[in-house]
Amino acid sequence: MSTLVLLRHGESEWNAKGLFTGWVDVGLSAKGEEEARRGGRLLVDAGVRPDVVHTSVMTRAIQTANLALGAADLLWLPVSRSWRLNERHYGALQGKDKAQTRAEFGDEQFMLWRRSYDVPPPPIADDDEFSQAGDPRYALLPGELLPRTECLKDVVGRMLPYWYDQIVPELAAGRTVLVVAHGNSLRALVKHLDGVSDEDIAGLNIPTGIPLQYELDGDFCPTTKGGRYLDPDAAEAAIEAVANQGK
Amino acid sequence: MSTLVLLRHGESEWNAKGLFTGWVDVGLSAKGEEEARRGGRLLVDAGVRPDVVHTSVMTRAIQTANLALGAADLLWLPVSRSWRLNERHYGALQGKDKAQTRAEFGDEQFMLWRRSYDVPPPPIADDDEFSQAGDPRYALLPGELLPRTECLKDVVGRMLPYWYDQIVPELAAGRTVLVVAHGNSLRALVKHLDGVSDEDIAGLNIPTGIPLQYELDGDFCPTTKGGRYLDPDAAEAAIEAVANQGK
Repeated sequence: MSTLVLLRHGESEWNAKGLFTGWVDVGLSAKGEEEARRGGRLLVDAGVRPDVVHTSVMTRAIQTANLALGAADLLWLPVSRSWRLNERHYGALQGKDKAQTRAEFGDEQFMLWRRSYDVPPPPIADDDEFSQAGDPRYALLPGELLPRTECLKDVVGRMLPYWYDQIVPELAAGRTVLVVAHGNSLRALVKHLDGVSDEDIAGLNIPTGIPLQYELDGDFCPTTKGGRYLDPDAAEAAIEAVANQGK
Repeated sequence: MSTLVLLRHGESEWNAKGLFTGWVDVGLSAKGEEEARRGGRLLVDAGVRPDVVHTSVMTRAIQTANLALGAADLLWLPVSRSWRLNERHYGALQGKDKAQTRAEFGDEQFMLWRRSYDVPPPPIADDDEFSQAGDPRYALLPGELLPRTECLKDVVGRMLPYWYDQIVPELAAGRTVLVVAHGNSLRALVKHLDGVSDEDIAGLNIPTGIPLQYELDGDFCPTTKGGRYLDPDAAEAAIEAVANQGK
């Protein structure tokens, strides 16, 4: 038996503006910072004490981890970061207005890019202002590994090696592991953990700032499918709000 | 040739109050937070780009690292933490008022405890409210390793294994290494690097929040003794202010 806690970063500056973000490295909004602190307090209230922390290499996830750990008096925990926990790369849509994109390409294409399992947006050009081709944090990634666009299936593929190689050994050693990451890298992980089908994953949303706790058995499978949000009412309300968007 | 940058945490809540702190885990004051951000901006202005970061396991050093890296847009750097970079353990003096201690024990004893190389204060009792005996961050330290008091010589002894085993290999691989730590753990490191004598180290002070850059040769020895502060004027003024204290 081991414990895994997932935490999606709080609202970013671009979430608030309705822009496709992906790998563009924007920070948290003031609301997102408060969500992160609240996430830390929820950990304390639930008596959940992580032993180790993993984040993506993106500022909004790292800020969320730092603020949550600060609020929980756990800044001293060892932390590892990896691009494999990054948000989905949104390709040529990065930096574009969501509403404008929907109007330009139509509802069907828009929903395919946003929610289909295996249809990536067009790739971003290396000289696009929102490309990560020259970003020093990816300097050690060989060119063929740096994504120019991703569908969720691609995220599952690049995330799983990190799960198996870095996180599972810590769970096997009995550590409680906190993963602070993004809507789509966490959906990819939940898809794997709960065995969600390629179709059903489209309807699964993870709310921001509310720790999601999984108890795992000896095979690293959840003892309760879907885990348990540390603030179930707030999680349900947030999930419902997303489901009602555009209705 | 490799580059090492040392950064002492900004003013803490207890620095401001004139209390012996040691291993008591107090946070930064508002002034200390601003010092940390300024330290990050000094790195950017000097064009110094660390590849990896090391901190102690104490909140005030980690906050300083997070704020400085945030200001430099480098939150994504890999970071390692170790108790071996902690401040000197101040023994039974932890939590005591400095002026009151000086009045109670006299100038000579006070200065011995503060500045002698090898005279530690009396050890702290495990049931003292300012002891770290029950602190979960040291749960993996065998009892004989957890300090109850330290002189600077003790700090050199427990810091050097981290220097040799964790930092030197990174320097050898050509990485620029940032160490964010404390007045005495950094004095211990500078003593080692610059070959400062046991006597002369008493007069060496490292100002808070100003990055100190060393270029090291193939034997990890400074090419320029004493290194180079990224804001030399501010560093000189701060060092002079400490030297004039109590004059």
